[in-house]
Amino acid sequence: MIENHSAAVLEAITFNDDGLVPAIAQQDGSGEVLMMAWMNTEALRQTLATGEVYYWSRSRGRLWRKGENSGQIQKLVEIRLDCDSDTLLLLVDQKGVACHTGRRSCFFRALRNGKLETIAKVEVDPAALYSSKE
Amino acid sequence: MIENHSAAVLEAITFNDDGLVPAIAQQDGSGEVLMMAWMNTEALRQTLATGEVYYWSRSRGRLWRKGENSGQIQKLVEIRLDCDSDTLLLLVDQKGVACHTGRRSCFFRALRNGKLETIAKVEVDPAALYSSKE
Repeated sequence: MIENHSAAVLEAITFNDDGLVPAIAQQDGSGEVLMMAWMNTEALRQTLATGEVYYWSRSRGRLWRKGENSGQIQKLVEIRLDCDSDTLLLLVDQKGVACHTGRRSCFFRALRNGKLETIAKVEVDPAALYSSKE
Repeated sequence: MIENHSAAVLEAITFNDDGLVPAIAQQDGSGEVLMMAWMNTEALRQTLATGEVYYWSRSRGRLWRKGENSGQIQKLVEIRLDCDSDTLLLLVDQKGVACHTGRRSCFFRALRNGKLETIAKVEVDPAALYSSKE
């Protein structure tokens, strides 16, 4: 259930010197860890107000609604906070793939036999994901 | 399977300006997200060399073997790297509880009904966990 009141969680969070907090997105139900990105207060407010997950893009220096161009949105199911109040766990319902490479999870490389191996297949052509350009 | 060769993953990682990378610990099998902490190159090397997870404690400014005092160690199952090469996902086998509060996961507070609610019970008395002092 999504809350319109972000005060309780905003007050509790310890943001870093850049005003950001890391947010881990996990698929509700399956437990799959999809990605990790950063939120500022505005990203969190928008997420709680709309029920769709917003992050702060450090590379682009702007708010970013996950899937705004690709359509691969994240519906928020629940927000959890850790014991140090400096990391968020977002339970989400990920539409399609989370990774810009077209894979379900961003964590698609594993250290095996001394090498980084790609362990997940591309499910959607990235060119199709970003045909409207991101 | 644990690798003694850390070169492949060390070379691939983009560490932040402090020489750190965030590492998400997830229980292998259940998918439960246990905690998020930080690693530097030495933490990663020790983790790969020993098969037990080491982090860099930012508050204490030193290497920290998870469970070194409490006995609640993390056996490494696999290390994964995300698409931006700046976040690690550690599949682990957590002995006992991960959180210093005595709860299984550090993410034991959830935003529900506009309030942060504690959603996990204390499984081990923290006083017992740290009787030898951490």
